[in-house]
Amino acid sequence: MINTAVIGGSGYSGAELIQVLLQHPSVRITQVFAHSSAGSYVFESFPRFRKLFDARYELYSPEKLGDADLIFLSLPSGEAMKIVPALIDRGKKVIDLSGDFRLSSPKVYEEFYGHPHTASALLAEAIYGLSEFNRKEIADARLIANPGCYPTSILIPLIPVLRERLVEPNAISITSVSGTSGAGRSNTLELSFSEVNENFRAYKVGVHQHIPEIEAGLKRFGNCDATITFIPHLAPLTRGIHTTIVAPVRQRVNEQTLAEIYHSWFGNEPFIRLLGTEQPELRNVTKTNFCDIGFRVDPTSQRLVLFSVIDNLIKGAAGQAVQNMNIAFGMEETEGLL
Amino acid sequence: MINTAVIGGSGYSGAELIQVLLQHPSVRITQVFAHSSAGSYVFESFPRFRKLFDARYELYSPEKLGDADLIFLSLPSGEAMKIVPALIDRGKKVIDLSGDFRLSSPKVYEEFYGHPHTASALLAEAIYGLSEFNRKEIADARLIANPGCYPTSILIPLIPVLRERLVEPNAISITSVSGTSGAGRSNTLELSFSEVNENFRAYKVGVHQHIPEIEAGLKRFGNCDATITFIPHLAPLTRGIHTTIVAPVRQRVNEQTLAEIYHSWFGNEPFIRLLGTEQPELRNVTKTNFCDIGFRVDPTSQRLVLFSVIDNLIKGAAGQAVQNMNIAFGMEETEGLL
Amino acid sequence: MINTAVIGGSGYSGAELIQVLLQHPSVRITQVFAHSSAGSYVFESFPRFRKLFDARYELYSPEKLGDADLIFLSLPSGEAMKIVPALIDRGKKVIDLSGDFRLSSPKVYEEFYGHPHTASALLAEAIYGLSEFNRKEIADARLIANPGCYPTSILIPLIPVLRERLVEPNAISITSVSGTSGAGRSNTLELSFSEVNENFRAYKVGVHQHIPEIEAGLKRFGNCDATITFIPHLAPLTRGIHTTIVAPVRQRVNEQTLAEIYHSWFGNEPFIRLLGTEQPELRNVTKTNFCDIGFRVDPTSQRLVLFSVIDNLIKGAAGQAVQNMNIAFGMEETEGLL
Amino acid sequence: MINTAVIGGSGYSGAELIQVLLQHPSVRITQVFAHSSAGSYVFESFPRFRKLFDARYELYSPEKLGDADLIFLSLPSGEAMKIVPALIDRGKKVIDLSGDFRLSSPKVYEEFYGHPHTASALLAEAIYGLSEFNRKEIADARLIANPGCYPTSILIPLIPVLRERLVEPNAISITSVSGTSGAGRSNTLELSFSEVNENFRAYKVGVHQHIPEIEAGLKRFGNCDATITFIPHLAPLTRGIHTTIVAPVRQRVNEQTLAEIYHSWFGNEPFIRLLGTEQPELRNVTKTNFCDIGFRVDPTSQRLVLFSVIDNLIKGAAGQAVQNMNIAFGMEETEGLL
Repeated sequence: MINTAVIGGSGYSGAELIQVLLQHPSVRITQVFAHSSAGSYVFESFPRFRKLFDARYELYSPEKLGDADLIFLSLPSGEAMKIVPALIDRGKKVIDLSGDFRLSSPKVYEEFYGHPHTASALLAEAIYGLSEFNRKEIADARLIANPGCYPTSILIPLIPVLRERLVEPNAISITSVSGTSGAGRSNTLELSFSEVNENFRAYKVGVHQHIPEIEAGLKRFGNCDATITFIPHLAPLTRGIHTTIVAPVRQRVNEQTLAEIYHSWFGNEPFIRLLGTEQPELRNVTKTNFCDIGFRVDPTSQRLVLFSVIDNLIKGAAGQAVQNMNIAFGMEETEGLL
Repeated sequence: MINTAVIGGSGYSGAELIQVLLQHPSVRITQVFAHSSAGSYVFESFPRFRKLFDARYELYSPEKLGDADLIFLSLPSGEAMKIVPALIDRGKKVIDLSGDFRLSSPKVYEEFYGHPHTASALLAEAIYGLSEFNRKEIADARLIANPGCYPTSILIPLIPVLRERLVEPNAISITSVSGTSGAGRSNTLELSFSEVNENFRAYKVGVHQHIPEIEAGLKRFGNCDATITFIPHLAPLTRGIHTTIVAPVRQRVNEQTLAEIYHSWFGNEPFIRLLGTEQPELRNVTKTNFCDIGFRVDPTSQRLVLFSVIDNLIKGAAGQAVQNMNIAFGMEETEGLL
Repeated sequence: MINTAVIGGSGYSGAELIQVLLQHPSVRITQVFAHSSAGSYVFESFPRFRKLFDARYELYSPEKLGDADLIFLSLPSGEAMKIVPALIDRGKKVIDLSGDFRLSSPKVYEEFYGHPHTASALLAEAIYGLSEFNRKEIADARLIANPGCYPTSILIPLIPVLRERLVEPNAISITSVSGTSGAGRSNTLELSFSEVNENFRAYKVGVHQHIPEIEAGLKRFGNCDATITFIPHLAPLTRGIHTTIVAPVRQRVNEQTLAEIYHSWFGNEPFIRLLGTEQPELRNVTKTNFCDIGFRVDPTSQRLVLFSVIDNLIKGAAGQAVQNMNIAFGMEETEGLL
Repeated sequence: MINTAVIGGSGYSGAELIQVLLQHPSVRITQVFAHSSAGSYVFESFPRFRKLFDARYELYSPEKLGDADLIFLSLPSGEAMKIVPALIDRGKKVIDLSGDFRLSSPKVYEEFYGHPHTASALLAEAIYGLSEFNRKEIADARLIANPGCYPTSILIPLIPVLRERLVEPNAISITSVSGTSGAGRSNTLELSFSEVNENFRAYKVGVHQHIPEIEAGLKRFGNCDATITFIPHLAPLTRGIHTTIVAPVRQRVNEQTLAEIYHSWFGNEPFIRLLGTEQPELRNVTKTNFCDIGFRVDPTSQRLVLFSVIDNLIKGAAGQAVQNMNIAFGMEETEGLL
């Protein structure tokens, strides 16, 4: 039985993490920390936990962690890095769901996150937790930087065709669509129902903090310096990310070959489902840890088109975090996730 | 006062056309034809017309057209071409909202629409009703082929940058998102609320019938043979189309220059609103004839990114049809549309 | 041409009022006041007004009202009463969309609105603007208290059957469902898309500020002291109110009689549409000033069931306000509203 | 390990049943039958089952049932009764999710379901599977008639206050709101996204087939002949039912007493959550087998107001069916459901 604590349990990712951990047969949640809700029951903030989880939020302090083997951090960017160093010092394993330890360069971090990095000594040690591509390092990591939701949806389908040198890396166009839960549990006017319903818009063009993370992931796992155009959009959905990638091919490729390549990469992956030339639908992955992938060679332009769907809160956050925990603790990778 | 008849008034486009025409001060609707609903009141099919419009659907026959000056056709593709030749013979002006007269090649028509063209003699005469770009020909037309919703949303922002030779025409990536009303008033399982809500998916990749229409429009008005990758998506929206276009630039361009170019093209257009580097939102154009346009030079890739939003049933169908009527009958172009 | 000013133009009701007034052929908007947005263009807050309305918000002061004949107030409750007395003193006609002048008792006002009434001297003079039932007084009013959205949807169908003594007034059960725009343009967590989508809940049971307004309206126009149970609900809708009323009958009544009664009350009303025993649908009235009404004698219980639908922002706010303006200024009641 | 077969696995309830059974540690699904989809994989109809369930639909015939201990029927009303008698003859336990065996009177069945009952000999034997109120009979049943979704949401909160003689049984007003999945997986125009989104309406007033089921349940478990007015509504939701009940009290009751009564009835129930005077929210029960209950004594009318929420496909169908299976096979009642 692994003892885990959750720091930052009052947002959507934190709550989803609690939900996933509650279903895990080999995990015990020892504490849930949340600053502003400290003292109240978790089910007061999230009534769906009533009769399922009777812990109270606590005010965080490192001494309270006692016998926790693993600490999940589900804090806003900028907050995790204040806490992680002390956790590592105490010998805790850490899985951080924020963006604080995903980039290797403090300079790029500051450029995209808008504040300086205050724990940059740990950046070199942090392991990027893209489960399917980095198992060996995850298994030995002390600090796992859990990937962002957009990068997860983009890297998984794109890495194989880059590694197989099927696509030109310098002209990749990516349009992703997210539901509102991706923006967190916040009370901004732009995320109010009246403003989001029957609406659709792009946002954060060219400045989204996931851009350097995607580029770094493509370099690291795709072995190339790719130039991407990444355009995120907000749709009237609560959960999920749908990604469409258009990329020029290096030479003509047929769909049968593509099917074989994806099969060779992902045929045995428990959480990746290959739909061949069918287009994946978001609702098939909501509330699951699956990433569904489809592809087409566009008959008009001969460019390769990739599609992927994930639940931003599960495979894009809490689910992949638990998948990484399973890897890091030598458990069956699917435990508690199917 | 112009007398107009509507053939095919029981679908969403036909109903929207009635709505727009009812608000037009210089138009009288003389008849509304609909095969399956003949004999019933229009407000029985569309109760929002109760107390606003008390006509009944009639079974179509050409003799009933009497004194109608202008015939709108809002029929499924394949049906319009059966009726249009006789209308032209009788000297009626015709605005066809279907795809039947938008393509010049009967062969391409058959390839994308799945049935042969039976009135191909009229294809050469049909005028493509992209109002902002084809006013002179629309003014003199007997047969106006009203543009499709996706092509309208794509051609308007894209033509200027092609004509100004800012972008490479051979690597344009277009992802569009449509609401369900674009698929018509149909009772298919895929369009049921339970299947569309909290869902998102691409569809008709590489085979959408609007692809040759977009290519033809870019050739005609953009003066170039563009190669596009067009990926349509379905979102949980009733109305509207959002289009994102990513295109490589021929040489570096700055956003100030772009703003000036768009201003020179569209600054005086009553139905095109320029948002500069802001991203347009769908809800600002629903139930209007506006097309809102935004652009960005993506800082990551230096590619040009264009955004547009329209109401698929208005600027993408009934509104543009009435705009074309205004042009063809020498009225103020905005009459009844603001 | 009537000169009107809008005080409080940065909320949903204020924006809707601007929209309705822009379509009115006999009205000019001379000023729009909004505290926090003063200096910015209205279309910056509501981009749908781009190219349609180029006024800026101004900081309110009474001297700026100059030649305005009529002042609309669209402020939160508690704010209107600070401004109205000075307006009346200056001889302006006033239509107040807030709840400040709808109740005759300052004590009840304070109980339900949570703050004391500071302009109670005007309560006796204020005319309740339920257009269909109070035309004569509205025509002569200096200060019109525009009805609340729920009361409008409830009083219209209920008054006739009370006045005809068809129902027992002491056991009326009312369940209403509202979209989120009824709660105003606010950034509360409970109104965020993530919390409202795929959700449904009752709220403000027994304490909603519209309860005394409904009771007063039933007393005044229904001639009886009714006891109601009013339960408002929030649905994943942006616009609209649907009301279901269940009331015991004094003696058996048949649906034919009911149809005749409603016809005699509302047959000539331009904004009330009688659906007989059909159930009205919300979408048929959105963006209109209509109230659609249906009824049934429940075969199980023999109780009378009434249904009504309105657009909360139009017939429930801005539309009825303009209808009242038309009455008060001797114009055609439907002008600008159809 | 219990061997179960599902007859009628291609609708929403059938798919949900498969989902729930797959999570049950003591159940094996031996066959899934579906007429029109026979031969295809279940995941072709419901792609969310990809990699989770690899069975194919089979054409039903009784011989194929072999070693199945328990048969679930998830067929349209009228179909189940054609199959059940042969199943009982073969000694199979049966849980029927349709309405075919919920009513004791074949005459009432025919009146509300529109076709005669052809297996009325079994009506006396069928046990109504309202788990919380009928455990002893469910434990011994051969044929369990699983309750309808609306009756489940109504009977659970209403029975205690009827049994405690707190409310007058002759004037109970019930308004329920359902998502679209309650209407099944069907391709009717009224359930298309374009017609349901931003809409709200009542339907089947006085003729809903659940009315006699509710009345029978109140008589059986509430010990009284109640007269109800039941008005079902359709909201733009995929899943869930929200019920509001207004009932006159026999004598004044306070909320503390109510809390105690509900606690005494349901305090130990694993799937009923008592919210006291808070209003339950639908989203807290979606994808769960919980029924959340709230109550208020309306301060205006002193009437009792009850609220309940369930997931129509889980507690209102598949979940309660599995709960009943657990009871009937002597397992822990919550097994596979938490």
